[in-house]
Amino acid sequence: MKIVIIGGVAAGTSAAARAKRINPEAEIVIFERDSDISYSGCGLPYYISNIVEERDGVIIYTPERFEAKKGAEVKSQHSVEDILVDSKEVIVRDILRDEINRVKYDKLLIATGASPIVPEIKGIDLDNIFPLRNVHNADRIIDHIQLNQPKKAVVIGGGYIGLELTESLLEHDIEVSVVEKAHQVLTNLDDDMAEIVVEHLQDKGVEVILGDGVIEFQGDKSVERVITESGQELDCDFVILAIGVRPNTDLAKRAGIELGQTGAIKVNSKMETNIADIYAAGDCVESTNLITGQPIWVPLGSTANKHGRVAGSNLCGVEDEFKGILATSITKVCDLAVACTGLTVREAKEKGYDVVSSVIKAGNHAGYYPDYTKITIKLVVEKDSGRVLGGQIIGKDGVDKRIDVLATAIHNEMKAAELIDIDLSYAPPFSVPKDGLMIAGLVTDKKRN
Amino acid sequence: MKIVIIGGVAAGTSAAARAKRINPEAEIVIFERDSDISYSGCGLPYYISNIVEERDGVIIYTPERFEAKKGAEVKSQHSVEDILVDSKEVIVRDILRDEINRVKYDKLLIATGASPIVPEIKGIDLDNIFPLRNVHNADRIIDHIQLNQPKKAVVIGGGYIGLELTESLLEHDIEVSVVEKAHQVLTNLDDDMAEIVVEHLQDKGVEVILGDGVIEFQGDKSVERVITESGQELDCDFVILAIGVRPNTDLAKRAGIELGQTGAIKVNSKMETNIADIYAAGDCVESTNLITGQPIWVPLGSTANKHGRVAGSNLCGVEDEFKGILATSITKVCDLAVACTGLTVREAKEKGYDVVSSVIKAGNHAGYYPDYTKITIKLVVEKDSGRVLGGQIIGKDGVDKRIDVLATAIHNEMKAAELIDIDLSYAPPFSVPKDGLMIAGLVTDKKRN
Repeated sequence: MKIVIIGGVAAGTSAAARAKRINPEAEIVIFERDSDISYSGCGLPYYISNIVEERDGVIIYTPERFEAKKGAEVKSQHSVEDILVDSKEVIVRDILRDEINRVKYDKLLIATGASPIVPEIKGIDLDNIFPLRNVHNADRIIDHIQLNQPKKAVVIGGGYIGLELTESLLEHDIEVSVVEKAHQVLTNLDDDMAEIVVEHLQDKGVEVILGDGVIEFQGDKSVERVITESGQELDCDFVILAIGVRPNTDLAKRAGIELGQTGAIKVNSKMETNIADIYAAGDCVESTNLITGQPIWVPLGSTANKHGRVAGSNLCGVEDEFKGILATSITKVCDLAVACTGLTVREAKEKGYDVVSSVIKAGNHAGYYPDYTKITIKLVVEKDSGRVLGGQIIGKDGVDKRIDVLATAIHNEMKAAELIDIDLSYAPPFSVPKDGLMIAGLVTDKKRN
Repeated sequence: MKIVIIGGVAAGTSAAARAKRINPEAEIVIFERDSDISYSGCGLPYYISNIVEERDGVIIYTPERFEAKKGAEVKSQHSVEDILVDSKEVIVRDILRDEINRVKYDKLLIATGASPIVPEIKGIDLDNIFPLRNVHNADRIIDHIQLNQPKKAVVIGGGYIGLELTESLLEHDIEVSVVEKAHQVLTNLDDDMAEIVVEHLQDKGVEVILGDGVIEFQGDKSVERVITESGQELDCDFVILAIGVRPNTDLAKRAGIELGQTGAIKVNSKMETNIADIYAAGDCVESTNLITGQPIWVPLGSTANKHGRVAGSNLCGVEDEFKGILATSITKVCDLAVACTGLTVREAKEKGYDVVSSVIKAGNHAGYYPDYTKITIKLVVEKDSGRVLGGQIIGKDGVDKRIDVLATAIHNEMKAAELIDIDLSYAPPFSVPKDGLMIAGLVTDKKRN
């Protein structure tokens, strides 16, 4: 059996590794446009900030190491130009040699990922306007910083990548302005929680401009100034473009593969597309929101890995299911961990849920133990049923723990009032006897009456 | 309505605060034998190690502060000598004045806690043999260290308290030998996991003697030497006695209150004893193990707090239930966090479960991110159903998170193979895309076939 995989980052390599493990006889080839495969996109901000010192650090496998370790063939710098559904072939361009070949497949996996959105703004082609998606993008940003010792950057976009890169640039003592078109950063949070992040950024000396889009980049050869809709002129030595990503679906669309209402590729729980023997996984596909049951597109490394694993099993005929996501995410913004899972109040209302919510502050661990800090917990609860629909947690320590407990609770459709029944671990260096999640559960449940 | 509460540490004060909140009109009095109330027993090792510098640090409320803040009356240094069930009175001794009084109650809560076991060993009455239960015990240990600059201690007992105190003594550069009668430390773990802790202690220069009990303390006025069953002679400047605690049930027993098969007070889920209007909570009562459905006695601060809350509600006629525990616990042993939840393999077998288990190592977070460390996860899974019955986790970072996720999963009767379906948070500083718990779930599930 011949399995062709298009794309060799998280989902593609996970699927290949899984499939080869199940069926060592299968002939598996990964085509990847880039020269790097299997890198940690999520690690790139830490490579840029020099917390990860070696480029190799964020590359989990080179093509050679992957082939040796996992037994699947890797063709990097090979771009798949078309899928011929009827003849079960892909048209592959060897980018270095500029050769085109047809390759047969029995099963095909599309794991083409997502790409940064590059808006059609005047001046967008000026030098030193950098997106961040792959290791080459990161290399270019690092080279720019090392060669030009820039003093001032404008980050366009206040999402995860924008804010993680803001932290990276602060590590290089670069002054940063963040420009976000929405009226809040991190639009996966409710606005009251996002406000905590803005205050933290401001404490770190970051200028945060909200509700204002960019209309022009000015400069001679390189960008020197960013002009916003409201008329602000922001001088800068370079720009980070982080307004978001979109799923790479062109190839799939041309082959007649159905896209979902989110614009990403539609798959069933076995990661099958509408066309027989063609699967899709990773940032190019949509998932099911486990709470609403509706399609949702949240491109994250953790999901991509799991997609890949499930696809890899099914490619080899071993049934496996990807049931869906809660859109759990976490990011570090300077000293703060910022996390969410499930629905925000805003999302819940948009989806027609009647909800109550509360925001509480609670200790990360015993107050008398060193490094005590308060974390802020927002809980979103369905009014009628009392079920937890979502949570957002921000703080300096213990945020990841609580968001993961909450994700597990939501996964199991627990009610807010039941959180106190969980026998969570307690010792002074780690927690308090009655955890903030339990208090949030009780407080929010009370609001239902 | 008059509520009398016997014991003013975790359960007693939680109950009083809760009851007063529900019914501000209720007359509530707490009788506490000790001069301190509402202290953190779990914090005492950190007070001794000087990590918590002030005595006040581990005292959450003084009697005066508690009265002012919570509105319940506190009579410290008042010992309840007897409960007169028929006349609904307690006999109270004012220890300072040496006066005896009768006090009427409408509802009574017994929260008498537990006391360290003091074995009848030759030489047990020598000076400088210290148990640790309350703040006075801690004061005495601290005084001894400060006054005598001791160089060598023997800790009798390799449970949580013994090992936490071992860490405290190491902080004072005191050489420590731990003597444990069982063939492993931390008998709430399986022996293979406990072995990791022993190796860690040995790395820290601690002598760990297993499978050997103490038969004699020798010395002139103060203890100078510990003699073990195997004939070892351990010279020392003082001894910590940490062989365990037993529930304080004498008072209850004399009043005809039923004890459970664990030897602690038996209560229903409303914390009611067998006698009308008498409740019990905290370290003196047994709980239900949520997995086996059988009684279990695991005296921990987190449970005591919850017991108190539930008792406080029911004392005031607001129905609340304490459903049970998973015996989740965590401790810090020098640089290691050691945690468990649910059943060990040994316990599961004792209870008649047919189980499979596996031990894996997994990263706390992304390998390229600073402070990467591997944690060891042991998962215990019911062979037939695939349900997770327990887990043990040891490592330097991220242990508390994973044990709490596991406790939440077990609470919801999740299967090992379902752990991978939980949408846990991922970003490089916090986790890996496929968490160790997920891997442990898959690996252990596979062993069922």
